[in-house]
Amino acid sequence: MFGNHNRRGFLKAVAAVGAGLGLSAESFAWKSGMLQNTDEMPVFEVFRHRRSVRKYKPTPVPKTDIQKILDAARMAPTAGNQQPWRFLVVRNRTTLDRLKDACITRSLEGYKQRENTTEEELQTQKERATEYFSNVLSAPVYIVVLVDTQSKYPSYNRHDGPLAAGYLMLAARALGYGTVYFTDSIPDEVTKEVLHIPDRYERVCMTPVGVPDEWPDTPDKKSLDDLVDYETIS
Amino acid sequence: MFGNHNRRGFLKAVAAVGAGLGLSAESFAWKSGMLQNTDEMPVFEVFRHRRSVRKYKPTPVPKTDIQKILDAARMAPTAGNQQPWRFLVVRNRTTLDRLKDACITRSLEGYKQRENTTEEELQTQKERATEYFSNVLSAPVYIVVLVDTQSKYPSYNRHDGPLAAGYLMLAARALGYGTVYFTDSIPDEVTKEVLHIPDRYERVCMTPVGVPDEWPDTPDKKSLDDLVDYETIS
Repeated sequence: MFGNHNRRGFLKAVAAVGAGLGLSAESFAWKSGMLQNTDEMPVFEVFRHRRSVRKYKPTPVPKTDIQKILDAARMAPTAGNQQPWRFLVVRNRTTLDRLKDACITRSLEGYKQRENTTEEELQTQKERATEYFSNVLSAPVYIVVLVDTQSKYPSYNRHDGPLAAGYLMLAARALGYGTVYFTDSIPDEVTKEVLHIPDRYERVCMTPVGVPDEWPDTPDKKSLDDLVDYETIS
Repeated sequence: MFGNHNRRGFLKAVAAVGAGLGLSAESFAWKSGMLQNTDEMPVFEVFRHRRSVRKYKPTPVPKTDIQKILDAARMAPTAGNQQPWRFLVVRNRTTLDRLKDACITRSLEGYKQRENTTEEELQTQKERATEYFSNVLSAPVYIVVLVDTQSKYPSYNRHDGPLAAGYLMLAARALGYGTVYFTDSIPDEVTKEVLHIPDRYERVCMTPVGVPDEWPDTPDKKSLDDLVDYETIS
């Protein structure tokens, strides 16, 4: 969005706004999305500012950006260099709408099986599900992260899969895109059926890639003291 | 290692050397370790230049760096913001030597149980194991990444654990440190016993953090074409 040559001036200009929020100019700029779509984001800012995004703008994501993101993902640690990954990129709106409809149907099936569910409750649930899945499936690009059950060391796929997904999400954030690590919210069986995923591949997660409708606030995080022990666990 | 003010001049100076190897000045500088110990490393360089390192220099790692690394790790995606992590940092050389001896003993036990193992074969294996574990336990800092089996959504720990470990390793690389995602190479039972890890915590992996004896070359990587499908898996 901003070239290197005018980045300094831009940061100076936003310093006043950021200062009012107790943020550095740079931190404010990343958080607000003003510095999106550049790969100059400092790495520790990327860690801090990746967020789980559940609603997107329709802004297209260039294929070069998708490739750059997946090129980072394939650099993740992997047991004995086995690289068991398969990344399925879905951009076809018709397919994504089919996925949305299948998710809504699936979510209502659970409700219908409950005893004593009234028509009114079903209607409310249908509206909720429609809103939720319309939002989470509003991005222009989805990536299904898969691992190959016939890889060299399949018992290590459970490490390799999430590692690549984590790299992917950080790389996307560095380019200004939101993601979210979906597992059961978008059922495995639904993606399998709608996207015709062969049994050989196991789904790790599925994530949208797109410009967030807005960047959510950071949820409350445990302090380092709550998470770290030195020498022995107290 | 190099402040911002003289970074440009430094990069210019190494350009000639890097060019001979077909690398950009910056890429060469990161790869060679000349630009280590700064957090200015561009994020896509971090993805590219993290390597699994199995031998370290004794150079101390300041506690502020460990904290910065773990501060990044705790920003990883986590199911319903449960943050099930526990990071055990071990720097005590006596403890690490105990861990090394226990790993060597364990590795020889397997050998002794085989039929027809000669004394000579046992001796060779002991030398090999001693060299291997002396190298992999030569770093000044080790971090055991654990997840809490009593977390809010324990069935999602299998995602959250590797995700935090991945962040940790990238953050360490950005500061100029090597890591390696150890699972069975350093047996779970050994760390559990030597480090007195309570049953409540499940080990995800264990990694050294330190200045590499040398940065290994990038192992052969599959191409993007081998890993990526668009719309449907071919």
